Amino acid sequence: MRIVDLIQIKRDGGDFSRAEVEFFLQGFLKGDIADFQASALLMAIHFHGLSDQELADWTESAAALATPLDLDDIPGPKISKHSTGGVGDKTSLIVAPLVAAAGITVPAIANRGLAHSGGSLDKVESIPGFNSGLNGSQLKSALKKAGCAFLSQTEGRAPLDRKLDLLRNATGSVESVSLIAASILSRKLSEKTDAMVVDVKTGSGALMKKMTDSRRLAQALVGAGKRLNQRVVAVITDMDQPLGNAVGNALEVMEAVETMRGGGPEDLVELSLELASRIVCLAYPDRTLESAKEQLFKLLNEGAALAKFRQLLEAQGANTQIIDSFELLPNASADFVISSPRAGYISRISADDIGHAVALLGGGSEGMDARIDTAVGIVLEHKVGDRIQSGERLCTIYYNADTHLEEASAMVEDAFHIAAAAPEKRPLIYEVIQ
Amino acid sequence: MRIVDLIQIKRDGGDFSRAEVEFFLQGFLKGDIADFQASALLMAIHFHGLSDQELADWTESAAALATPLDLDDIPGPKISKHSTGGVGDKTSLIVAPLVAAAGITVPAIANRGLAHSGGSLDKVESIPGFNSGLNGSQLKSALKKAGCAFLSQTEGRAPLDRKLDLLRNATGSVESVSLIAASILSRKLSEKTDAMVVDVKTGSGALMKKMTDSRRLAQALVGAGKRLNQRVVAVITDMDQPLGNAVGNALEVMEAVETMRGGGPEDLVELSLELASRIVCLAYPDRTLESAKEQLFKLLNEGAALAKFRQLLEAQGANTQIIDSFELLPNASADFVISSPRAGYISRISADDIGHAVALLGGGSEGMDARIDTAVGIVLEHKVGDRIQSGERLCTIYYNADTHLEEASAMVEDAFHIAAAAPEKRPLIYEVIQ
Repeated sequence: MRIVDLIQIKRDGGDFSRAEVEFFLQGFLKGDIADFQASALLMAIHFHGLSDQELADWTESAAALATPLDLDDIPGPKISKHSTGGVGDKTSLIVAPLVAAAGITVPAIANRGLAHSGGSLDKVESIPGFNSGLNGSQLKSALKKAGCAFLSQTEGRAPLDRKLDLLRNATGSVESVSLIAASILSRKLSEKTDAMVVDVKTGSGALMKKMTDSRRLAQALVGAGKRLNQRVVAVITDMDQPLGNAVGNALEVMEAVETMRGGGPEDLVELSLELASRIVCLAYPDRTLESAKEQLFKLLNEGAALAKFRQLLEAQGANTQIIDSFELLPNASADFVISSPRAGYISRISADDIGHAVALLGGGSEGMDARIDTAVGIVLEHKVGDRIQSGERLCTIYYNADTHLEEASAMVEDAFHIAAAAPEKRPLIYEVIQ
Repeated sequence: MRIVDLIQIKRDGGDFSRAEVEFFLQGFLKGDIADFQASALLMAIHFHGLSDQELADWTESAAALATPLDLDDIPGPKISKHSTGGVGDKTSLIVAPLVAAAGITVPAIANRGLAHSGGSLDKVESIPGFNSGLNGSQLKSALKKAGCAFLSQTEGRAPLDRKLDLLRNATGSVESVSLIAASILSRKLSEKTDAMVVDVKTGSGALMKKMTDSRRLAQALVGAGKRLNQRVVAVITDMDQPLGNAVGNALEVMEAVETMRGGGPEDLVELSLELASRIVCLAYPDRTLESAKEQLFKLLNEGAALAKFRQLLEAQGANTQIIDSFELLPNASADFVISSPRAGYISRISADDIGHAVALLGGGSEGMDARIDTAVGIVLEHKVGDRIQSGERLCTIYYNADTHLEEASAMVEDAFHIAAAAPEKRPLIYEVIQ
């Protein structure tokens, strides 16, 4: 078998056999297949995609090359939660402790941020002391105590996934439906959980900007999941404006804590409850969505999720006092207010521009290895549909260095579209595919 | 400018500016752009192609990175001849001395063989003593004496072209219309000739197997040529069966010599005269094709082309006695006859299978750097349309090592299709685009 022949097969729209998929993944991981051949193959996959069978083969072969989590003596249902990523998306920080409070274990292998969208890992690591590199026994004790944990996708645990991510990030094949699905599903397999809920974002701030692509991704996840006997529920949700009000790592931790205190923004609460109730219904198939949502709403507002979050911080070595004293989190040294140039309705807040502005301020990594400033970010004071007066505050930029402040603030101003008439309301949750 | 952004632009079907094309080619040549990023970009170009303007920009930028030939004090018209390559295609060996006999200079920067199709360079280098690495003054004296020369595309003269070829060969982007056109045109620019004739092969033994792709390539060459003020004539010709009877390096040299003695196979003579007459009409625009063909036919049959070929061998240090004593060329030690399993008409001789069989015998390089055995090959005794008896000889395989003989002979047998009825005649020359 020669890699150049495999590249040509996919380039010309052919399908790989299981043996060919294994040849590629094993050879790439071992370094027998050069990066310059792998990147050409990944680009060909971007164009022609993987069939459901190829995706299932890829997923199993990739999972076999990762070290699975050992959750054997963790009692009760175990469910994975994944998001394709978006601007201001801190739902994992809320949903994991929330469903843990309902007796479900969620071992979250978290991502770093990519390009303009933040990753859960960067968010939790903004908390002083947070250790995302738990070993096997630390993880077990964390999961037993808190019911959830945030783990980095270390070199050691999933070296193939990491190698593929780095190469895709450098060679323009991040936005491939098949490769995204393969990465999510193989992670699910190595988490050894009973089922998975995936939040597939759609819109300007998402990897998949068009609904057709988002739906293709959702269908690929569910379809290949079925071939692998994995229960997968994909929820397609809006990512055209930022989720919640806070964008930026420490700022999002604060907003997540506020939400677990019962004071979260409407969209963030709604989506968190939706995803959490889907998880509850996967864990307990006889429950209805309505009863699950009711229970979760109570757990959220009565502080049960926050209690779990506190246990999680404890188990991962972080300073739990941040929950009550946000000043212990990284805080930016300066702020800058963006006001509306005129009266009207906010018809759009372009999520990718907001995300890029935060990245410009140092709060996101455009490359994979750059250090990020977890204190900086943006807090929106209005969302799409709000009526505003001329000169009214739209949002506040929190920054440390003013090197790119001008560029970032222009980008943020441009992100807000003000119209004379109220915009049509976009739904937050579009579709559920299962 | 970041290479990953350029990859995404092309991946999504966008066009490059001149500055972006230069950024890529210069960065790739210098090594600032990694091979794994370049190969992803080349694959994206395979899918979306280059516009005429991008192709013109690419060609000029690439030519600027090569060392041009210095033909300033060579008198008379200078024309380039190029072929996209095929099985048994030895026309360059005939056409260059033939038009030289008509007073036209043809400095041929020749290729190595790629995959199943041989390159002119491997053919001439099978001649003992042949030196394809002439320096500037050696080249001038060869061109003044013989009117033509065969030069290797050395590391030194066209390092970018060579680097791109190697990467494309290893990463499945050889068959890209745009990249083939760019490579041919940039070579033409650095040859500093007045015009170019390109033989664009079509069929099973060609890089472009379908007429639509061959026509796209021909149009790209002529279209981008116009933007660059370069006169290009593209002749689309059949490569569904091997050209002539001999396939294999030294065997093709022998057939070329036979042809220059007036004893060549019909198709090879016809195509050589067609291409040569196109060159003559580019050099002398007032000539007609008919008068040019008449003159060339005489030059071929009266030995004028062979006399030029002898001068070329002399100028490039080769043993001219091979012209009269083929035993001085590499000769295989054994042969094996393939006979027809039944009576009928030969309806097809699959050129790619014949080419692959010769490569299997060691006569072609499937990789770029493998050593090849220039003695081995196949000599056809019948061509498409011939009526044959059961048991009649179809061709002879000439080999040294019998390691792959069984596999190769099975491949050759399969290459011959025998049908009850005579096949419809395919034209040898399909179209001329200029």
